Amino acid sequence: MYEAILKHVNQHIAITEKEEDYFKSVLVSAKIAKRKKLVQPSTFVKHEYFVVKGCLIGYYLDDKGNKHIIQFAIENWWIGDFDAFYNGVPSKFYIEAIEDSQLLAIQYDDLQQLFKTVPKFERYFRILVTSGFISLQGRILSSLQNTVEERYIEFCKAYPTIEQRVANYHVANYLGVSAESLSRIRRKSVKKS
Amino acid sequence: MYEAILKHVNQHIAITEKEEDYFKSVLVSAKIAKRKKLVQPSTFVKHEYFVVKGCLIGYYLDDKGNKHIIQFAIENWWIGDFDAFYNGVPSKFYIEAIEDSQLLAIQYDDLQQLFKTVPKFERYFRILVTSGFISLQGRILSSLQNTVEERYIEFCKAYPTIEQRVANYHVANYLGVSAESLSRIRRKSVKKS
Repeated sequence: MYEAILKHVNQHIAITEKEEDYFKSVLVSAKIAKRKKLVQPSTFVKHEYFVVKGCLIGYYLDDKGNKHIIQFAIENWWIGDFDAFYNGVPSKFYIEAIEDSQLLAIQYDDLQQLFKTVPKFERYFRILVTSGFISLQGRILSSLQNTVEERYIEFCKAYPTIEQRVANYHVANYLGVSAESLSRIRRKSVKKS
Repeated sequence: MYEAILKHVNQHIAITEKEEDYFKSVLVSAKIAKRKKLVQPSTFVKHEYFVVKGCLIGYYLDDKGNKHIIQFAIENWWIGDFDAFYNGVPSKFYIEAIEDSQLLAIQYDDLQQLFKTVPKFERYFRILVTSGFISLQGRILSSLQNTVEERYIEFCKAYPTIEQRVANYHVANYLGVSAESLSRIRRKSVKKS
């Protein structure tokens, strides 16, 4: 259960067995079935989630009911609504499982206590959120500079293994293109490889 | 010279006089004149910058020569190309002063050493980058959900005092609208207030 998250933590910081035990004690195991929602707009968000197994999407539904996928999360990613979680404002997103998923959740107060008790975790989360910032900025840049084909290739690099797991229309939505355009691009890149 | 940055740091972490001295010792003072560039694309980026006084923009120039302003930085903001700085890849951005500016720079190796010597700074930068992540995500959301007028109001909240300092076409570029549309919105919001 904890193997993946401890391996992930140890890639960034070195923690003792005692610190490991403390960290495990603040994690809560959670299962979520495909199509179920973890977070809904206009609610308060008390947890962040580490994906042990499965796949989730974070999306925004606009006034006209159009869905905009902002984030995918697969194994070893953290997902949550950071604004709602850190600033105590109501969520603006949906977070939904698109596969049956196994998660580890951490509550806001427990995370703050973890920072006090084992300050090394400041470093772990600093590194993660810095990567998150860079990918988000990369996503903005990518939409300005690249063709849809290039953006699709970048997407496959950022989320390896996701291609076989996620419906075409989810990827198309994330890239901001029609499912038909994406199918054409996928066929083209299969031919090339 | 150091007053603003120390005040900013002390809003997030408590540091001793000795730690303060060490922190000051790794900061390098830099002046940059209006219209001069701090970072250029395809170069390696060794520093991050704290704005003591002045105003800078971070922008991307696409294949067709169109400028896309990604970030404004005014007093008490950090600016840099995080991807280039943390991952050692060539920069994709320009960072340019749009006012004569006074900066404090920190070099990559010095920052890493600072994290080792005074680990509390992990917390300071974690909090900052988390806010950066949230504003970037807010910017994506805002472009999906809000009218240009609402986005302009949000912009004024995020960058108070900037309205009087920055040329209309810079703000218009950041919001992704024509300078004419923005002027119309500005006139409208002046009438309302």
